[in-house]
Amino acid sequence: MKTAGVVVEYNPFHNGHLYHLEETKKATGADIVVAVMSGSFLQRGEPALVDKWSRTSMALQNGVDIVIELPYVYSTQKAEIFAKGAVSLLSEMGVDELCFGSEAGRIEDFRKTMAFIKENEKRYNDQIQLYMNEGNSYPKSASLAFQSLQDHEDVLDLSLPNNILGYQYVKAIDELRSPMEAQTILRTKAGYHDEDFQDKKIASATAIRKKLVNDEPKSVKSYVPDPTFNELKHFYQSHSTFHGWHRLYPLLQYKLVTSSQSELKAIYEAEEGLENRLVSAAKHSNDFLTFMEAIKTKRYTWTRLQRFALHILTNTRKDEMRPALEGSEAPYLRLLGMSSGGRKYLNKIKSSLTVPLVANVNQFDHPFLSIEKRVSEVYALGFEGEAKEEFLKKEYQTSPIIL
Amino acid sequence: MKTAGVVVEYNPFHNGHLYHLEETKKATGADIVVAVMSGSFLQRGEPALVDKWSRTSMALQNGVDIVIELPYVYSTQKAEIFAKGAVSLLSEMGVDELCFGSEAGRIEDFRKTMAFIKENEKRYNDQIQLYMNEGNSYPKSASLAFQSLQDHEDVLDLSLPNNILGYQYVKAIDELRSPMEAQTILRTKAGYHDEDFQDKKIASATAIRKKLVNDEPKSVKSYVPDPTFNELKHFYQSHSTFHGWHRLYPLLQYKLVTSSQSELKAIYEAEEGLENRLVSAAKHSNDFLTFMEAIKTKRYTWTRLQRFALHILTNTRKDEMRPALEGSEAPYLRLLGMSSGGRKYLNKIKSSLTVPLVANVNQFDHPFLSIEKRVSEVYALGFEGEAKEEFLKKEYQTSPIIL
Repeated sequence: MKTAGVVVEYNPFHNGHLYHLEETKKATGADIVVAVMSGSFLQRGEPALVDKWSRTSMALQNGVDIVIELPYVYSTQKAEIFAKGAVSLLSEMGVDELCFGSEAGRIEDFRKTMAFIKENEKRYNDQIQLYMNEGNSYPKSASLAFQSLQDHEDVLDLSLPNNILGYQYVKAIDELRSPMEAQTILRTKAGYHDEDFQDKKIASATAIRKKLVNDEPKSVKSYVPDPTFNELKHFYQSHSTFHGWHRLYPLLQYKLVTSSQSELKAIYEAEEGLENRLVSAAKHSNDFLTFMEAIKTKRYTWTRLQRFALHILTNTRKDEMRPALEGSEAPYLRLLGMSSGGRKYLNKIKSSLTVPLVANVNQFDHPFLSIEKRVSEVYALGFEGEAKEEFLKKEYQTSPIIL
Repeated sequence: MKTAGVVVEYNPFHNGHLYHLEETKKATGADIVVAVMSGSFLQRGEPALVDKWSRTSMALQNGVDIVIELPYVYSTQKAEIFAKGAVSLLSEMGVDELCFGSEAGRIEDFRKTMAFIKENEKRYNDQIQLYMNEGNSYPKSASLAFQSLQDHEDVLDLSLPNNILGYQYVKAIDELRSPMEAQTILRTKAGYHDEDFQDKKIASATAIRKKLVNDEPKSVKSYVPDPTFNELKHFYQSHSTFHGWHRLYPLLQYKLVTSSQSELKAIYEAEEGLENRLVSAAKHSNDFLTFMEAIKTKRYTWTRLQRFALHILTNTRKDEMRPALEGSEAPYLRLLGMSSGGRKYLNKIKSSLTVPLVANVNQFDHPFLSIEKRVSEVYALGFEGEAKEEFLKKEYQTSPIIL
């Protein structure tokens, strides 16, 4: 049995994801695909459009065999830590080959880049610092530093988001000394950040989400597989809206106006008095977009600011995040769902797992899982009445989804 | 110029308050009435039905000359601290005679009781502890202890809420060595806690608030003076609802599910793990009443629990409250409003004030005023859109209301 691994958000699962999944199976010849999927909150510092259970169901119906939750402590981080967390989980699951989409599309480029940066580490870091001192954000500085150091023409463009992530996967595999192989698939058509519909079948998740903010599920029908469309329809019927920052902003605003300076300073990603900027913006902004516009600067990317806002909202402190930054082992494997093939695979590898496989969060304790429960409570507050109960019931009582 | 002082919430100002105000003027022969009035949050641990500006306006239109804000650090406390704060402000304002309503109605009873308790302090405190050990709340234990110790028939019934408050006023005047006299007026008809309308013109504030939860202002027209009715109508027109815990419960719920144990333990009035009881109730209660029903016990009064919930909501910590418990001097005098008579009086006494008279909160700093601003931000979150802006504008920019 050969196993491929993918790292996903599926927010929501669309035709581009289906293409990547099918190409992954072709390229690796895998019988089983394991997806490590972000839970309630995503890398850009946003709540997921639809809950993890609905997204797990989309994944399974579209051909994924096992869905493992990427804990909040990894899912809401910059690429390096995000990748380390995801790779540690896939590696623990005994995955043979990690397969990611990238703008570059050739795995050799990633290996060469890693070797080059390793050799030039000090120069590279100094250069990043220089660009940051000029007021650039970290991702921009890293990309500029890399460009300024290398003189190969065929080397990786590290200003592109999927190349960055891919590079970090390859690096994490190396650092964790995982026996897992890496493989990449050329991303086609819709770029990660494209907000327009340029194609009749493929659109980015960003574009799809943007559409769903103002429109009903049928507006995106042609860009998503049927199981996604059905899940979106079901979700919309019971909630009358999709999840998003607009559902949680009043809570963030409340948190900002009531917290003491020392409480805010203790929040993960607080630095350079950035928290004061957020407090004063919260007092004068009645919606999330106005708030974000009020705090944005050249110094920090939108994503970085959104993640900080999220950690404030979920009350996630620096001391709680430290183990995720320092450790490199998978903490546990939380199973969100599996196909019959996935179940067979799990039965086979169960005895060789070195960390607990968690099917019910009430039956296991871990500091990361406590954070997960807390952030799920916050996510749930974006729902109303019965929809909230239903989500929390799935979260605490339901066994993994079995297809 | 003779000055009388009253301590009020005016939530809202009703015919019973008008009666008390007129009797106060008769009994004291005062030219000027100074009211110390609670701001956004009240002694029972609740947000005020209508904001302090509207209530100040009611007070002035009904014959009060000067309205001074009772800071949150006093207004949301048990009788002893509440009274100490209020008395210190009235005393600083140079009030000649404090006049309060009571079930007893004779000032000698209060003096005798104070003397009796002073003489028997140790026995009294031991007896309170005994009743508390049996699982009774503090107010009930104090009342039982007092009954068990005294054998006079004409002594004060300390199980009645206005007698308790009055006793604490008399005691505070004594302890602060204030030259202020005390005077009491027999409360008639509607008891403080009566929830029904037993009279055609007089109803308790509790009964009036209860009516306004489900009904429009006209339902209470006959129980309030015209200026109150007009203020209520105006408020209802711009907010479509009155303020109350129902407007703030989602924020309390969020706060409880996201705070760490040590954060909650640091909140004022946290004791004996009570906070854990609130956390677990918050997870399962979708409205404030359900939440309160879930946490109530014989050990704590409803008011005590509601105040604790309020301090959690406003993130008011033990270390912030300590100065209010230990100090006995007025911190500052925040002027909410005045009549022309009130203005003359203020001009006369201005130079002899020993603490700042604050007309605009932006022009003065004090730890109690920082708490006041924070709790006002929370109070404001119970309003929507323009109503919120309007309230905060009054809070930060408008000068006191001048009649």
